[in-house]
Order: sequence, then structure tokens, then C-alpha cells
Amino acid sequence: MLNEETLIAGAIATWSSNLDRANKLFCGLDEAALQKQVAPHRNRLVYLWGHLAATHDRMLQLLGIAERVHPEFDAIFLSSPDRASTLPPVDVMRAWWAEVNRRLDASLRELKSNDWVARHTAVSEEDFATEPLRNRFSILITRTNHLAYHIGQATLATK
Amino acid sequence: MLNEETLIAGAIATWSSNLDRANKLFCGLDEAALQKQVAPHRNRLVYLWGHLAATHDRMLQLLGIAERVHPEFDAIFLSSPDRASTLPPVDVMRAWWAEVNRRLDASLRELKSNDWVARHTAVSEEDFATEPLRNRFSILITRTNHLAYHIGQATLATK
Repeated sequence: MLNEETLIAGAIATWSSNLDRANKLFCGLDEAALQKQVAPHRNRLVYLWGHLAATHDRMLQLLGIAERVHPEFDAIFLSSPDRASTLPPVDVMRAWWAEVNRRLDASLRELKSNDWVARHTAVSEEDFATEPLRNRFSILITRTNHLAYHIGQATLATK
Repeated sequence: MLNEETLIAGAIATWSSNLDRANKLFCGLDEAALQKQVAPHRNRLVYLWGHLAATHDRMLQLLGIAERVHPEFDAIFLSSPDRASTLPPVDVMRAWWAEVNRRLDASLRELKSNDWVARHTAVSEEDFATEPLRNRFSILITRTNHLAYHIGQATLATK
């Protein structure tokens, strides 16, 4: 294995283990359990879950690997805070979460090293010329961190 | 820049930006503010801070890059839960946190690609032969995630 392949495999493994953890946290919860807040007056679990699903949905586009699943939910989970919108039914959220992560998982393993160091779709060729770290790999590792950040919060409500 | 160097630079940049965030969260807090809990009956900020410092202190050894600073604090922040031990004074914690992260920062930038894909010190050569992802790079990205996980929690008490 080339060094670059080993590094990428390590980052994907860390992404996957965080996703496993999120699946265990969220996927078994019923409607009532999803209403719990991570701390008094803070986000509810259902909102955090949707926020993560929307973030991962956006990754499909940022990485240029697949069509988005529910871009219309960005308004609920990315542009608005919790309690500002009517949320989708839990079965819709569950299917959305599964489908987004299925498309990601299938594609992440297909990308080659040169794809990972290439720019993501939200940066222009011009900007990328001077900021080469704005690549697909940075999307993977910063979104893994984003996932860990909210898992840390969600854990507080589910222990 | 070789692909492998770009990937490593991206991971170090993400580590650094999480560390900046932790510095902003913890370093300006006084003794009273550090007593806040992230949620009712959950860890206090001072414990999370020490837990992160101890984790980063252990990284020095796991990466084989420098002597540890306060290994004796593992008993307080890694082996015991919050409220089980008398904690070090805040000025000692502040100096510890700064020194650990200073040693890490200096060393991370010195490591070459071949160093990053080499085993960390807690895995045997025998195990590493069949589990090549147990390398220094995995320590960097999993500990960045660990940092993000607890930053997510600490933010709940400091907003």
C-alpha cells in the first residue's frame, strides 16, 4: 500500500467508526426519546440528527460524488435553529439518514488519491491554486470532526 | 507537494483549528467558571480540560516524539471520573496544557510521511504487520476527533 493510500484508509476508518457510533445513538430512538434535549434549553436529539443528516447530504455535493437526497431539508436543519420549523416524520428522517450515508459509503471507497487532493466543489479553481488544503480530504476529516462534536453532545442525553 | 504531504498537512490543520477552539473555550476561564457542568450531573469543565490535557500528554508518548509532561495526572483525568480526585491548581493545569500542546505542535510538523504511516508505540510490530492502520496518523485523527467530541460538550456550558 502506498503511504497516501494508508492515510486515506485511516481517515475513512475513523469516519466509519464515528458513523457507527451515531447509528447506535440515533437509529434506535423512538419519537419520544428523540425529543430529549442534550442539556436544558439546548438542541433536541431529533434536531441534531437532522443537522448531521443535512451536513452529510451536503457532503455528497461537496465531494461531487452523488446527487443530494433531501436538499430541501437544509432550511430546517442548517439555516434554522431547533424549534423554528416543523420537522419531517421520524420514518422519513430514518430513511434519509440511511440513504445519505449509504451513498457516501459507496463513493468514499471509490475515490483515488488524486481525487482526494483535488478541490471540493465549493472552492473555485482560482482560490484552490493558493489554498490547496481546500480539497476533498479536508471535507472528510472536518465532517468527521463535526460528527464527533455532536455525538459528544448527544451522548449526554442518551446515557 | 506530494499527495501524502497534502493529506498530512490537512490533518494537522484540522488538529490545530480544534486546538484553537479549545484554547478559546478553556484558557480564559477562572476557577469559578471552570466548575460549571456541561449538563446537570455531568462532567465539569475543569475535568474535561484535564482529560484533554492528559490525552494529549499521552500522545507525546504514543507518537514517540517527546517526554510526557505530567504522566501522574492520568490517574485523575483518565482512570477516574470527575469528582473522584483532588484536582491540580488551575495555574498548574494551564501550564501543563500549554506545555503539552507546545511539544506536540513542534513535533507534528517535523514528522515525515514515512513516520506517519509507521506504528505508534502502543502496538507491537507483530500486530502492526496485520493492522497497518494502527499508525501515528490514526493517533492524530482519532485524537482530533476526541478533542472535537469534548469541545461539543464544553460549548454547552460556556455559551
